[in-house]
Amino acid sequence: MSTDPVRVGIVGLGRWAKVLTRAAKKSDKLKIVAGYSRSEEKRHAFEQELGVAAMPDLQTLLAKPEIQGVILTVPNEQHLAVAAEVAKAGKHVYTEKPIASTLDDGLEIAALQQKYGITVTVGHSARLMAGIRMIRAAIDRGELGRVAFLEANFSNERALELTPKTWRWYKDRAPGGPLSQLAIHHFDVLHYLGGEIAEASSMASKLSPVGAEVDDQSMTLLKFSDGKVGYVGSCWTSPGVFSVRVFGSKGLMHYEIDFGAWDTPDKLHKTSTLYIQRGKDGYASREELKVPESDMFRAELEMFAESCRTGKSGELTAENGYTAVAVVYAALRSIERNGQSVRIADMIAEARARVPESSHVA
Amino acid sequence: MSTDPVRVGIVGLGRWAKVLTRAAKKSDKLKIVAGYSRSEEKRHAFEQELGVAAMPDLQTLLAKPEIQGVILTVPNEQHLAVAAEVAKAGKHVYTEKPIASTLDDGLEIAALQQKYGITVTVGHSARLMAGIRMIRAAIDRGELGRVAFLEANFSNERALELTPKTWRWYKDRAPGGPLSQLAIHHFDVLHYLGGEIAEASSMASKLSPVGAEVDDQSMTLLKFSDGKVGYVGSCWTSPGVFSVRVFGSKGLMHYEIDFGAWDTPDKLHKTSTLYIQRGKDGYASREELKVPESDMFRAELEMFAESCRTGKSGELTAENGYTAVAVVYAALRSIERNGQSVRIADMIAEARARVPESSHVA
Repeated sequence: MSTDPVRVGIVGLGRWAKVLTRAAKKSDKLKIVAGYSRSEEKRHAFEQELGVAAMPDLQTLLAKPEIQGVILTVPNEQHLAVAAEVAKAGKHVYTEKPIASTLDDGLEIAALQQKYGITVTVGHSARLMAGIRMIRAAIDRGELGRVAFLEANFSNERALELTPKTWRWYKDRAPGGPLSQLAIHHFDVLHYLGGEIAEASSMASKLSPVGAEVDDQSMTLLKFSDGKVGYVGSCWTSPGVFSVRVFGSKGLMHYEIDFGAWDTPDKLHKTSTLYIQRGKDGYASREELKVPESDMFRAELEMFAESCRTGKSGELTAENGYTAVAVVYAALRSIERNGQSVRIADMIAEARARVPESSHVA
Repeated sequence: MSTDPVRVGIVGLGRWAKVLTRAAKKSDKLKIVAGYSRSEEKRHAFEQELGVAAMPDLQTLLAKPEIQGVILTVPNEQHLAVAAEVAKAGKHVYTEKPIASTLDDGLEIAALQQKYGITVTVGHSARLMAGIRMIRAAIDRGELGRVAFLEANFSNERALELTPKTWRWYKDRAPGGPLSQLAIHHFDVLHYLGGEIAEASSMASKLSPVGAEVDDQSMTLLKFSDGKVGYVGSCWTSPGVFSVRVFGSKGLMHYEIDFGAWDTPDKLHKTSTLYIQRGKDGYASREELKVPESDMFRAELEMFAESCRTGKSGELTAENGYTAVAVVYAALRSIERNGQSVRIADMIAEARARVPESSHVA
């Protein structure tokens, strides 16, 4: 096995590109060697600040033979167009979550894999948090017994600060407000912990005084294929919360992170909480568990590097990526239908019918 | 003002009658002076154990002029019949929660008030917990800013232990399983904290291996009249949980009790948690608040004593009681309708139409 780091490029050089580039610098599995942004100013500033060579255009970046993959941190609406260019050049694709703004785009991005023989990795990093991994391990060991019920919340104060100049102000760019911006993370986490999600039923409300177009309160109920039920709540007008609670017949586990540490994942374990409550006893008998240090951003990039090296999809698949988007759109339809439950498979089948070139995707 | 304790009787001498009688003994506001059960054995055992004089029949109890009110701890299906007897005798009524098994019975019990000039108190004690009172006080002071979002959970392991000999096994006796048995408590708590509930959308599942008729997983979304949203979850196959979290624009508060202390409310404060999280900071900056000692069972009985003394309804009204039942039935209908939201006012209007004698109730 080669010990050489995989060489990758990065496209779209905003705030998140910096977070990922700093995470990559801590890894010996990959190296970000070239960057491109349409703004000349941005790409030179990025080169100066982070030492990533600025490319004059995307084709120059893609023409470099040593580059095996490209990280996309462009706006969600541009994921498909840029991913298609990258795939045509035979390079592997990493996109930030969500895979795309629309389910149709998400399916097209997934279809690039078979069409061009590349892999697509979608950065649903929340499932990589050490506490989430520990809950999954406990489920797999049978320590919680039959898991029946999952609750998750991801909230922050964003809607109190929206202005017409921010893209999240608008319905078409941030559909459902915190539903597409925050709850989507937990749809993937609950998919990871609970298995296939069959249906979603959702409620929304708009309460922030700022007057934005988007809703700012979101609550969604999920029915899993095996009968489990799940809840994902997201309040966009409150202090920050990120929590997951899993209820099983032998025990429940609760994980909650200090929201202030979201952008510095290597520090998350210092202020996060994980406990298990066994049997019938009240919480006085809850047992605190130690969460080891981890870095979800480095971990997702290393998974991408592995896919670049092997040509095989890892855990952060395009399918998981578009499934999370499908849950968002099922929830949006459920809101229109006054809460009626909407099947995830129906949303995907309808989008496939609209996107014929992706209809061969499994 | 008289300092003499109000004299009351108690009917239905099971486990819960003992809990309430012990709570009453700690109060100087009321005295339980007579008890009746159809079982002669039970009423004599109760007299021996708790010093409450056994009455040979209900009419003898109701004929005692010093008795101003009667506590009903009979099964829910018998609430209406016994309450009607008590009301006809001109005595005030206290019923355990729920006010009745059906919304129709609940409306009829409420109607007894105007018909016979008595008051009905419904023992929704959870809202009297010290932590819940502190959250409401913080909301009223404006400390949380605009409250937009409420979450509550009440779970236990009951469905793992059901047998065909237990009444909760059956759909018609425990509709929705934990929905009517546990979630109903939080419907009243959220009504107290969030104001009028307009709609409910609900999901259920049956996962316990015991084979009971009833569902054992329940999740309900609530829309409040002012646009707030609420969630009440209840898992009947897990360790015990009782928690409430309220999200406001300036802060959130979380209250959680040690489930093992449910039957000994004067000890709840010792192992319960209440914290406030202000502004944008993560939970590392959460501030723990001290919960004072309280006793929700003594408090509800003292409210009843006050109504006996003044002839005026207190906070634990019949209307609050049947509203909680209406939310349960709205949720049950929503489950039948695949999650579609059901208006609480519609449930109450339909029940009124079926129960003409209660149609004059405000």
